[in-house]
Amino acid sequence: MKPLNVTQKLIQSHLVQGEMKPGTEIGITIDQALLQDATGTLVQLELEAMGLDRAKTEVAVQYVDHNLLQTDFKNADDHLFLYSAAQKFGLWFSRPGNGVSHPVHMERFGIPGKTLVGSDSHSCAAGSLGMLAIGTGGLDVATAIVGQPYYVKMPKIMGVKLTGKLPDWVSAKDVVLEMLRRYDVKGGVGKIIEYHGEGLQYLSAMDRHVIANMSAEMGATTTVFPSDGETRRFLKSQDREKDWTEILADKDCTYDLEDEIVLDTLVPLIALPTSPGNVVPVSEVEGRKISQVVIGSSANPGLRDFWMAGAIVKDKTIHPEVSFDINPTSRQIIQNMIENRAFANLIKAGGRFHQSGCMGCIGMGQAPASDSISLRTMPRNFPDRSGTKDDQVYLCSPETGAASALTGKITDPRTLEKTHGMAYPTYEPPELEIINKDMLVPPTKHKTEIKLKKGPNIKSLPHMEELKSEYEVPILLKMGDNISTDEIMKAGAEVLPFRSNIPEISKFSYTVIDDTFYERALKAKEKYGGHIVVAGENYAQGSSREHAAIAPKYLGQVAVIAKDYARIAWQNLVNFGILALEFENPDDYDILEQGAMVSFKNLRRDVAERNPIRVVVKNRNDIREVILRHSLSDRQIELLMKGGTINDFKEKLVS
Amino acid sequence: MKPLNVTQKLIQSHLVQGEMKPGTEIGITIDQALLQDATGTLVQLELEAMGLDRAKTEVAVQYVDHNLLQTDFKNADDHLFLYSAAQKFGLWFSRPGNGVSHPVHMERFGIPGKTLVGSDSHSCAAGSLGMLAIGTGGLDVATAIVGQPYYVKMPKIMGVKLTGKLPDWVSAKDVVLEMLRRYDVKGGVGKIIEYHGEGLQYLSAMDRHVIANMSAEMGATTTVFPSDGETRRFLKSQDREKDWTEILADKDCTYDLEDEIVLDTLVPLIALPTSPGNVVPVSEVEGRKISQVVIGSSANPGLRDFWMAGAIVKDKTIHPEVSFDINPTSRQIIQNMIENRAFANLIKAGGRFHQSGCMGCIGMGQAPASDSISLRTMPRNFPDRSGTKDDQVYLCSPETGAASALTGKITDPRTLEKTHGMAYPTYEPPELEIINKDMLVPPTKHKTEIKLKKGPNIKSLPHMEELKSEYEVPILLKMGDNISTDEIMKAGAEVLPFRSNIPEISKFSYTVIDDTFYERALKAKEKYGGHIVVAGENYAQGSSREHAAIAPKYLGQVAVIAKDYARIAWQNLVNFGILALEFENPDDYDILEQGAMVSFKNLRRDVAERNPIRVVVKNRNDIREVILRHSLSDRQIELLMKGGTINDFKEKLVS
Repeated sequence: MKPLNVTQKLIQSHLVQGEMKPGTEIGITIDQALLQDATGTLVQLELEAMGLDRAKTEVAVQYVDHNLLQTDFKNADDHLFLYSAAQKFGLWFSRPGNGVSHPVHMERFGIPGKTLVGSDSHSCAAGSLGMLAIGTGGLDVATAIVGQPYYVKMPKIMGVKLTGKLPDWVSAKDVVLEMLRRYDVKGGVGKIIEYHGEGLQYLSAMDRHVIANMSAEMGATTTVFPSDGETRRFLKSQDREKDWTEILADKDCTYDLEDEIVLDTLVPLIALPTSPGNVVPVSEVEGRKISQVVIGSSANPGLRDFWMAGAIVKDKTIHPEVSFDINPTSRQIIQNMIENRAFANLIKAGGRFHQSGCMGCIGMGQAPASDSISLRTMPRNFPDRSGTKDDQVYLCSPETGAASALTGKITDPRTLEKTHGMAYPTYEPPELEIINKDMLVPPTKHKTEIKLKKGPNIKSLPHMEELKSEYEVPILLKMGDNISTDEIMKAGAEVLPFRSNIPEISKFSYTVIDDTFYERALKAKEKYGGHIVVAGENYAQGSSREHAAIAPKYLGQVAVIAKDYARIAWQNLVNFGILALEFENPDDYDILEQGAMVSFKNLRRDVAERNPIRVVVKNRNDIREVILRHSLSDRQIELLMKGGTINDFKEKLVS
Repeated sequence: MKPLNVTQKLIQSHLVQGEMKPGTEIGITIDQALLQDATGTLVQLELEAMGLDRAKTEVAVQYVDHNLLQTDFKNADDHLFLYSAAQKFGLWFSRPGNGVSHPVHMERFGIPGKTLVGSDSHSCAAGSLGMLAIGTGGLDVATAIVGQPYYVKMPKIMGVKLTGKLPDWVSAKDVVLEMLRRYDVKGGVGKIIEYHGEGLQYLSAMDRHVIANMSAEMGATTTVFPSDGETRRFLKSQDREKDWTEILADKDCTYDLEDEIVLDTLVPLIALPTSPGNVVPVSEVEGRKISQVVIGSSANPGLRDFWMAGAIVKDKTIHPEVSFDINPTSRQIIQNMIENRAFANLIKAGGRFHQSGCMGCIGMGQAPASDSISLRTMPRNFPDRSGTKDDQVYLCSPETGAASALTGKITDPRTLEKTHGMAYPTYEPPELEIINKDMLVPPTKHKTEIKLKKGPNIKSLPHMEELKSEYEVPILLKMGDNISTDEIMKAGAEVLPFRSNIPEISKFSYTVIDDTFYERALKAKEKYGGHIVVAGENYAQGSSREHAAIAPKYLGQVAVIAKDYARIAWQNLVNFGILALEFENPDDYDILEQGAMVSFKNLRRDVAERNPIRVVVKNRNDIREVILRHSLSDRQIELLMKGGTINDFKEKLVS
């Protein structure tokens, strides 16, 4: 038999359609599903629309970690709705404030060898345990929960060999920042990153979580680690050693692509505004004055990370002009932080403890002051994501964050040895953590007559129009490369509470780029029956939020024309019946002007037959023809024609 | 010498004008000033306008406890502004997240025998230590900081004798709820409540804080406790025994009014929506389903309160449909809660820990779900204050809150003995608490050249128009009794960030009552040069926020006509140049119709000479004359004529 790498083993054991040939669509069975609240309300509405009886996955968990601020009734209503839905459909429910989904899932539910889809782009974090874990749109997760396979284009597998050992003051975050330095925000598109090599032995399972988590920022389909002794040690510390199985790459296995990181050579790194791919050594930007440091999020969720920050600030006081915000990952982490003194060290030095959850990482509070720098251990720094327009958010390790909180300016933590006479603190993980499962409500054992509890802001999904053959519609917006979902549909305390109300949330479509979009889209819908938008490379990178497709669809978006797409976004567009088109010749991007009218003819036929799609573009001063194409599978073409997956399901329900 | 009660001793030792005759204006020197952020930004702008060099009070502290959510740049900008102002003017600065002002002040700065004014209505809480502590408008606090006396009408002193001892499951909150049951929300207006009697020996200093704090809800000028052995014990536990002096009422002293509470007869009490005065026994409303319990706030801030809640839920799990929110008072409390296991007990049972501060008490998050009951240990449940329109907020003790969190419905804690076999937990206070002062930044020692750091939302005060002699203006709004400042200018995450921006915040004037007010006021200002409003009894009860005067003034409010006024509001109206009128005959309230035009003639003369103010009221169907009057002091008349205190100061600065 051909020797397999870990990724191939995981896929092969779950493959139900296609073959492991990069670029072709495969279907795999899904063992576990992860939902968070900001995307989950929609998933539950989708499950309701699909008429689900009981979840078919082995484990499905509804987490509540995003919308925790509750500035009015909406978020609290959502929490009660999600609880009622979890009970009705047989899901676990992780109660508000219990913790951030990815680390809690890893601690309580992650099992090597299993597949997982999650309605959150950072679901790839579970790859840390030797799982195949993919972040995707909510509808794909709903589909998995009702027992259908998950479809994805078979990615290329990139093996990254780790050699050596990390120097003092350099940690897992710097490893993934090094990857982002090399590959930027689209270098992982169409790839699964598999780490191997003897350097792995020095990276704990939670360190691997840090690395796997931010593969979302490279656009990777996911990241995979082997399940080895470190995995076992982690599961043992969670009182779940019985869930461990060894999964190692076969000797002599191969990868489609290869790279190597010599850990000894790494230095503290930092991502500059406003992209996780803008990575430079911390030393290059040392001395810039800061107003905030935030420790936490799914990108640095481990007990070690908080302990390290606490050890660095121990018996010192945070700079008076710095807000040192601590977002404890989960209530379990808090209990362990109390035990290992991290909590006391942080609070004594001036840490501002917040409730367990995503908080500022998703723009739920913690917005930094105007015209000032915020350092965060979080995964993203897209424009305006923090809630402060023109924010200056830098991404770094807990070591860099804590060192900078002390000095009030960006500080390479290695300099603490000289300035503070500090040796690099050595973390000793506990053999067995304090375990807290009290706020995880198990699924009901049997089918129940529970009624979904829908507050006044929870609205059923609007009707999705099916694809027509002829359109003459304007280009309402022309965008550049690497537009993130935060720019298409921003997160934050103002917008997130409308996640279960499409008509309301659609008002925020593209506001970060152009706050006249909503009005213009309404007019275009009335006058022309819809609109299209144009983008450069890697359209809709970032989060998994399908609202970045549904809301534009609701406003009449017929198609997107882009050089290429981020994976999840591309799937979401199809799922909600928006045609994702690419250029036959990418240079034609320059031809299309914002405001131009674009004519489509015989569109249904051309899409179905995979013909070149010839459109006439009426610019202000010229008329041009442009050739477009799509790369949908047969399955996806069928969905698109019907106006998306929901219509398809409704049709099946009727028949 | 005439024997004096404690209140008289405190006033006499600080009296610089007038005499202690109820109803006449007295001036007293002020030793300490307390500022919180939501009112403090304005105070600092006022200090700037007054050209202050260094604070003249013995102690002045700028706390940051209200605007902590930071959903955009505004709050973080305010924090940096307040820090720069504290440094510039020589104030202490309690950093964001350090804790709620009143209990932190009591722990770190409170000294028996001192006077205090605070720009927060609950500043009266410091009366727990034998201080004369008065909540008032920001401008009065600014005036104290620049070294001027504080002027107030000498209140009547009501002696409340406490006898006996509280039964199990009944605590200090039930004592003040009993007072509210008796006196409702205006029964304390014009009074200082002084507690005495042998029942005091069983009430710790922090229990007294609970009772003193909510005297604001009765409209009392303040509450005073003696400084006795319990006070000493408290200061010792804060490592400040040296600050203790004994202050007891003289034997045979008298009170203007008297009442008595036999503590043994009290039962657990609860205030129903939407007034702190709607008090009934918990047993009367037992069994109503709830969705939230919140423990914390300045009304139940003590270590004991959290410990008690923790002891009740220990080794149990909160009802799955209840959000059990814990707002730890301060970082010092957190450290002590860790020590006494309260923290672990609460978090294990399902408590959702939030950052230290006012949080949901001021509508900063924690809004309850639609159409559901929220139980809170907080001081207020005015309509919409929680952030959820038509909210159902009940106020109760930590015992009642914790018991109800377990059962998911309103529960008399005494029933736990039967249902859970639980004995009433006995609290043993530590002799010495863990002390944390690290986040209290001391004043700069000398005058500094610090520049105020004003973000783009921090605007200088607008010009205040002076009083004219003739007006013909419409009654824009006619209101009933007990209108709270929350209805005039709501708190919460949407509005609070505009506290340093009058033009913006004015858009929210009276929105809880009538959301067309702003537009109508702008029109009336343009067409008629202003407007008036009419109200019943106890106008503008509740918080000390002067925005409830400044914003209407900015929109052209010339006068308020009310049956009577809450104390702070009445002072604030004058301070910002709004004429506070009363009816010669209160029945004339019925004559005035919303929309009527009211003509004033010779107003300046009549105000100055205290003549009856005759106005002509043109209702829809009739024209009537109504006689009004005011009860301003000479000092206040002078201020009013000039358009308020700021104009007066500016005038003095020029000359």
